[in-house]
This record gives sequence, structure tokens and C-alpha cells, in this order.
Amino acid sequence: MATESDLMQKIVSLCKRRGFVFQSSEIYGGLKSAYDYGPLGVELKRNLMNLWWRDMVHSREDVLGLDASIVMHPRVWEASGHLAGFSDPLVDCKVCKERFRADKAPRVEAGTALTITLPDKNQAKTAEETIAKLGVTVDRQGKDLRGAVAGDRGYVCPVCGSPFLSDERQFNLMFRSSIGPVDPLGAVAAAVEGGRLDGLKGRELRTALEAIAKESAVYLRPETAQAMFVQFANYLQAAAPKVPFGIAQMGKSFRNEITVEHFIFRSCEFEQMEMEYFVEPGTDDQWLDYWKDARMSWWQKWANDPSKFRLRPHEPSELAHYAKGCYDVEYLYPWGWGELEGIANRTDYDLKKHAQYSGQKLEYFDPTTNRKFVPYVIEPAAGATRGVLVYLLDAYHEEEVDGETRVVLKLHPRLAPYKVAVLPLVKKEGMPEKGREVVERFLKRGIHARYDVQHAIGKRYRRHDEIGTPWCLTIDGQTMTDDSVTIRDRDTMQQRRIPIAAAVEEIEDLLRRD
Amino acid sequence: MATESDLMQKIVSLCKRRGFVFQSSEIYGGLKSAYDYGPLGVELKRNLMNLWWRDMVHSREDVLGLDASIVMHPRVWEASGHLAGFSDPLVDCKVCKERFRADKAPRVEAGTALTITLPDKNQAKTAEETIAKLGVTVDRQGKDLRGAVAGDRGYVCPVCGSPFLSDERQFNLMFRSSIGPVDPLGAVAAAVEGGRLDGLKGRELRTALEAIAKESAVYLRPETAQAMFVQFANYLQAAAPKVPFGIAQMGKSFRNEITVEHFIFRSCEFEQMEMEYFVEPGTDDQWLDYWKDARMSWWQKWANDPSKFRLRPHEPSELAHYAKGCYDVEYLYPWGWGELEGIANRTDYDLKKHAQYSGQKLEYFDPTTNRKFVPYVIEPAAGATRGVLVYLLDAYHEEEVDGETRVVLKLHPRLAPYKVAVLPLVKKEGMPEKGREVVERFLKRGIHARYDVQHAIGKRYRRHDEIGTPWCLTIDGQTMTDDSVTIRDRDTMQQRRIPIAAAVEEIEDLLRRD
Repeated sequence: MATESDLMQKIVSLCKRRGFVFQSSEIYGGLKSAYDYGPLGVELKRNLMNLWWRDMVHSREDVLGLDASIVMHPRVWEASGHLAGFSDPLVDCKVCKERFRADKAPRVEAGTALTITLPDKNQAKTAEETIAKLGVTVDRQGKDLRGAVAGDRGYVCPVCGSPFLSDERQFNLMFRSSIGPVDPLGAVAAAVEGGRLDGLKGRELRTALEAIAKESAVYLRPETAQAMFVQFANYLQAAAPKVPFGIAQMGKSFRNEITVEHFIFRSCEFEQMEMEYFVEPGTDDQWLDYWKDARMSWWQKWANDPSKFRLRPHEPSELAHYAKGCYDVEYLYPWGWGELEGIANRTDYDLKKHAQYSGQKLEYFDPTTNRKFVPYVIEPAAGATRGVLVYLLDAYHEEEVDGETRVVLKLHPRLAPYKVAVLPLVKKEGMPEKGREVVERFLKRGIHARYDVQHAIGKRYRRHDEIGTPWCLTIDGQTMTDDSVTIRDRDTMQQRRIPIAAAVEEIEDLLRRD
Repeated sequence: MATESDLMQKIVSLCKRRGFVFQSSEIYGGLKSAYDYGPLGVELKRNLMNLWWRDMVHSREDVLGLDASIVMHPRVWEASGHLAGFSDPLVDCKVCKERFRADKAPRVEAGTALTITLPDKNQAKTAEETIAKLGVTVDRQGKDLRGAVAGDRGYVCPVCGSPFLSDERQFNLMFRSSIGPVDPLGAVAAAVEGGRLDGLKGRELRTALEAIAKESAVYLRPETAQAMFVQFANYLQAAAPKVPFGIAQMGKSFRNEITVEHFIFRSCEFEQMEMEYFVEPGTDDQWLDYWKDARMSWWQKWANDPSKFRLRPHEPSELAHYAKGCYDVEYLYPWGWGELEGIANRTDYDLKKHAQYSGQKLEYFDPTTNRKFVPYVIEPAAGATRGVLVYLLDAYHEEEVDGETRVVLKLHPRLAPYKVAVLPLVKKEGMPEKGREVVERFLKRGIHARYDVQHAIGKRYRRHDEIGTPWCLTIDGQTMTDDSVTIRDRDTMQQRRIPIAAAVEEIEDLLRRD
């Protein structure tokens, strides 16, 4: 366990040091759970998402792409149930002031004798006084308070262990904003001035304020998926696809998460790669089967250690009420197995809901059978930012080489930020010029290459090992006589010579190998 | 002018019919000024943005990529001036209720006799009564009201021409949201219940509400640019670039625009391609020159009609207070010349502002001169969504062919959604199977190809002309005997035969030509 969290620390540190991932707005103290992808991270993420697009859209006749707006009509989220149900029960601890999710708090049976623990003596003293005001006397010993008893709630504060808690409050995970010239604060001000809030309290007051805000409210999408249902009829009209077919989208989604954790694993702003695959009812079970296997092997294909991926079928109790079946592709993160992608049989739930809320027909007409039906939907929904973390974890290796530790990111060449580094052995004898010539050949073919001349050659090799550059081409004395270079393999560290004239094609061939 | 707006209508209609651009959330009545990119539009937009990335990042040693979060720390927008200044003066017309931007309204000198015009007689009658309540008597004739006189404001309502207007109100163009478990409506409710708003009015009340909202407020970025300044120090640390160098970013930005217009030209959610190029002070003028020319030729390179692009230097009066110089790349839209990209010399304004607000040093150390300085910045800031519109306008052609009108999108092959269509002449004699084989060859090489067998061959050619597919490969009787296909050029409609074995390389070669 110590070495595992150690790995996360090493990844986070490497990400910042070499420019994969920075904290958002770091110079301003950072923004909770938002991340910026630096010069290497943006390439890794783009490579991963472009691969997904290639394999899910371009290389399939049956899948069409989509790029929908992040801000959609609020009715979309009423129909999808996100506006009503996409919320967590939140509770405040009256002792330590922690705000936490009730459904994630430690379970304790009513009547259990509790120990409340504060960080230090002084805080324990303050807590004792707070609890006294609630009418309960506790026995203070150092940082611990004894004598409180668990109530009917079934849980206690996850931080201090106190049973003195606020009511549960629903908290919507969607980011709310407002659109158009009507400004919700102005509308609230008008309501206050007009006396329309006078005498209102608690739930009534809250409802009145919600109604005012709702006039201009829009939400940032909490998933990319709904747009595929909302635009379903336009796709039938414009592209006349035949069932089974899919609509795929990649892009940002936003959730006002209470618990953000594990670096980019769970953050408020994140990227998804989702596809809705529309099938004839009755064939949905076999398509769920097909997609769970396809998606599992896709993730394994780019990994060094496929055994760290698994497919976990959902228990019936885990399934959303509308879902007929679901599998998670899970990865063995340093903290245990966790989700990377979900593949769900969503039945005809979404299309029917949007048909109901919009009053539009969302049906498919089958020209071969002359029959109309509402397709079932299989949804492979993957985390793109999560994928970046998974492949960083999978790639990170430390090896003993000549008594030193070599850190090497064994990223699949397709994922690597730079495909090739071009390294003049020394900064003279025409080698830098020759190096620039070689780099130019790659750039012209659209292969991301890096010219690198700083520091000794051994240090440069290590630097490119650490950022996952699969091949280094070195310009040396012999190059200047016969136009050949050495090509060094990141993983084996083996070198061989090839002619410069063949270098681009050599790398293109190596890159084509999936 | 009639034919010009005609062109926009044709583009909008083609976009919907063929699946380039749909209105967002259309089945719910649409969302004001947000658009979804359909199966063809998403490819066109991706192609354009990928070209920009290739030319601005991958093919340049001196530019590094970035992908920052959309939600940034609110201090970023205080430092940048967006929170204070990024707002428009808005006014309501008391007669027709139009809300409009004061700075865009028709200018009228004080004392001018006015005619107020309503859509119909009934509304004119209502308006007459409204004006009477304001103490002014007007003379009503049909839809017109005469007798009002322009006041000191210098402008009237752009819709009805009335001088009866509300006060000007500042309106921030940034989308505001809130992050974390503190919910602003809950905080307002607490303030109301706690009596903290009692007796407050007007500006005081508004200020109190703003202060409450500010506690948890975050904003959607109105431009991608600030992240490059905010992460400047991290880039120096991680990648050790030498001045001059650039940081480039593409992605979504959001502005709560009052005036949305011309389809995807100005919308609330849009995409940008921006680069901040850091240079030594004193070299900034020549770099502004360099980038204005580089960007102008980049846009022209992918166009059929380069004469519809121009570089317009900003007048001194147009320049932002911190800018030393600025050029717009403009396009001749159907409604006249308009902006496509701005190339500005932003001096050291942004880095200094962020240094001041964050308390961090944002300086560059020059190892060759042992000198520290704050770089100047040249910013080529392009509209990606606007670029999509420009190339659609540029590509749209109608031609007379055999007495019929052929609509053809002469998109640059690099921009075209599909590069190749593979068309079996008939649905039998093994041609469909052969067609699928050919398509497979392209997909394996990552070339976006389309298998298309529906309807007569002539109709299929027209269909692919209309969506800009540059080459059609047709499988015919001869194909089945000698494995050759015809290749048809979209623009010339000329056909010639090539062997299937050479087809992929032929298209790859054609695509490589810039």
C-alpha cells in the first residue's frame, strides 16, 4: 500500500515536472479539482482521443460523429432526469464543520457508544463546548471526546466521528449558469424590493428563489450522452443510417463533485468519449455482449499490462432503474479496482423520455420490414481524462541500469507525445544543421518530432525515456560521412544504424503496428 | 444584397439537410445561439482545427501546446480585466420592451422630431397609452406615433425608434456559475431569513447580492488566451523554451452575447484557436509583422478565393488600451467584411497583470545575456467556428451542368469530411463486396472514406459533390475483371482509371499537396 500511493505521487510529480498535467490556475492557489494539460499532456490526451475517434467513428461504417454544445436547453436535463435526480444527499457536521455525502459516511448502529476525535486539544475543548450547547455532556481526554451515542441516522461524521449532524440536503451536481440578458441576481433583487419574498422561510423561500433562478437557468452538461438522443431525428434525416448504427461524441463534461480524488481520476471538469449505439429491440443483449468485449480489448490493446483491466458485470442492485444490463471496464488503480468505462444497455428509456418531453416522434422506420420502432441503446461511455491517468500508470517503470534508476514511460508509440527525438551528438561539426534537416522531414509528414541538443547525450536519452519518446535518432560523426543515424529503442535501449533517407518510412511503419 | 443573404440561407439549409450543423436542442425549440456539429460538420471542424494544430504546434519547434480547463480561478478574470470591463451597456425600451446595446443603437441628435413605429395598429394604440402615462402626448396614425422628441441620450430604440428608455445597465458577458458545496441560492435564502437584506434597495441591495454570489462564483472562460499567461512559469520550468516561443491552445469559449447573429458567426458557445507568442521587447514590431502575414496566408491557403480575405490594421482609436498594434484578418462575408482572426501586440500587459494579482514572478531569464525580462506577447487569436463558416461560404458553388444546377462544395481536400467515396455501380455482381474491400483499405490507413450504394450513380456523385467529397472511386464491370476503378474529381468531374492496388497511395499523394 505504501508503494502504491508512492506510485501516484511519482506520477503527479512527473506530470508537473515534465509538463503533462498542471493544476489549473496554480499561481492563484489553484482551483479545486481542475487540471490543465501541458505541452506533453495535451499531446497524450489528443492521441488517445484521436485513436478512439479513428476506431469508433472513422474505421466503422455504422458510426457517425457529433460535436454538440456544452450548454443545452434545460428541458434536456428534465427529460433525462438529471435535474431532478442528479444530486447527492449532503450533511454538515455540527462539531468539526465537515460537509460530506451521507451515503458515503461510516455506518454506525443506533445506540453505539462513540469516540469523537479532533485534531488537537484546543479544538477538542471548543468541540466540547459546542456539544454542551446541544445539551449533551461529553468526557474530554486529550483530543478525544467520549459519552456521545449514535442516533437513528445510521452514520457519523467521516472526519471526527460525531453524530451531531445537520439535516440531509439534496445537492445538484450540475453546474448552473444563466443565459440571455435576464440576470438572476437582478431578478432576485427585484423580488426583494417588490416584497415578494417577505415572510417566506425555509422550503418556501428556497422554492421561490429557485423559481426566479429557473427563468434564465442553463446547465453545463454532466455527460456528453444526451445530445445523441436529442439529435436522433436530425441524424436519421441527414444521414439515413440503418439500424444498428451509432452516434459518437467526445468532449468536456462538468460535475460539481463533492468528493474529488486521486488527481485527474475524479475532477469537476473532465473529458468523455461516449457512443450511443441504436439497435433493434431483441438484439440488444448480443450487442451489449459485442460492445463490452470490443471496448475491453480496445483498452488492453494500448497497455503494457492487460491483466490490470477487468470486465465487471453490474449486480442487479447496482443497475439504474432503466438499464437492463451493464458492465464496467475497470482498471487496477493504486487504490484498487475502479471504473474506466461503463457499457450499458439503456433500453429505449432515453429516446422515449425525450419523445415525451419534446412532443416529437423519435422512432426508426425500417425500410426492409416497413415497421416503425424505438431502438434500444447500448452505450459505451468512457472517461478520456481517466484514460490518460490509466496509461500513465500503466507506462510508468523504474529499472536498474548500470547501477542507476532509469525512469521510463512505456507508452504505446501511438500515445507517446513525441514519436521521435532527433539528437545531434555534439553542438558542432554540422551536426545541429543535419539534425534540423532530419527533424524537418518528420514534421513535413505530420509526425511529431523533437529536436533536442541540450546536455550530454546520455542525459537526453533519459529525458526522452521519462516522457515516453519511443525512438531517438542520433546524429554522430558517421552521419556526417554516410548520412546514416542510430535509432535507439526506448524500451530495449538497443541501437542500430539506418540511412536518413529511410528514417521517416521506418518510423511510419513502426507506428502503423497497433 | 438579395443574392448575398440568399447564399447564407442556402448554407444554413445545406448544413441542416446534409448534417453539417444543427441548432442545439432543436426538438425543445432550440437554444439561443448554440449549435451542434453533425456527422459532416464535426469532421470539417476537426480537420480545420487539426490543420491549425499541425501548422502552429507540431511543425514548429518554437510552439508548445496547452489544453487548460474552461473553469478557471475567478482571480484570473479580475487580473485580466474581464470581470470588471467585459460588459456591455444594456438598455430597455419602455415602449416596445426591446433590450438592446446602447453603444450599437441608432444615433439621434437631441431635439430631433421622431416617428415611433410599431408592428401594427393595436400595438400602436397600446404604445400611445404607455407614452401618455410617461406624460407625453403623441399623435397616432396607423402604426406610427409622432410628436416625441429625442433627448440627451443621443440614441433611440433600434426597433421602434422610441426615446423612452431605461437607464443603461452594465451586463457582464461572462457566464457565471458556482463551484463547491456552497450553493448561492442557499446563501441568498440565509441572508433573507437572517434579515441581512432588510431595508436594502437599488445599488446597495445589488451589491449585497453580488457579494453573496461571489463567495462561490466561477466563470466560463470568455477566451482561451489567459491560461497561457497563468501557466507561463510552469512552461518555463517544464520545457525550458527559449524566447521567442509560443503557447497554443484550441477549445471552447463562452460569451453571454446580447446580439447573436449570422448563424455560427457569433454565438454564445464557440471555439477558438489562440496562440501567445512571447518575444523580447524591441523585437515585437517585427514579430507582429511576421505573424500577421503568416496567419493571413494560412487562411488563404485553404480557400478557393484568396481575394475575399484582407488584412486590416486597427486604427489607433480601435486599439485596446494595452495594445501597441493589431491587425484583423477579415473575410468578405455575405453581409460585408468581418473579423476572422485578430493578431495583436499585447505588450507585457498580461504577464505583468497576472504577476501583480498573483504575487508570482512571471519573468524570463535569458541564459545568453544573463538578463531577466518580461516578454512582450504577439497573439494570433482565430475563430475556429467562424473558420468553418468561412470555408463553407468559400466552397459553395452552383454550376450549370447538362441543363441542371450542380451544387458543389469545393472544400480543400484537407478540410473535406470524407476524402473518398467508394461507389459500386450496381448492387450485384460482386460489386458491393469489392467496394467494401476498397473502403477497408482506406480505413486501415486512417483515411476517412465512405461506402455508398444507395440510388443511381449520378445521384450519388451529386450527393458527394454537395458535401465536398473530393474523389469518388467507382466499382464497375471492368473492376471485376482487372481490379481497376474509375477515380472522379469533384471539381472537374473528369474520370480516369487506376488500379485498386494504387488507389490508397494515389489519394495519399493528392492529400499531401497543400
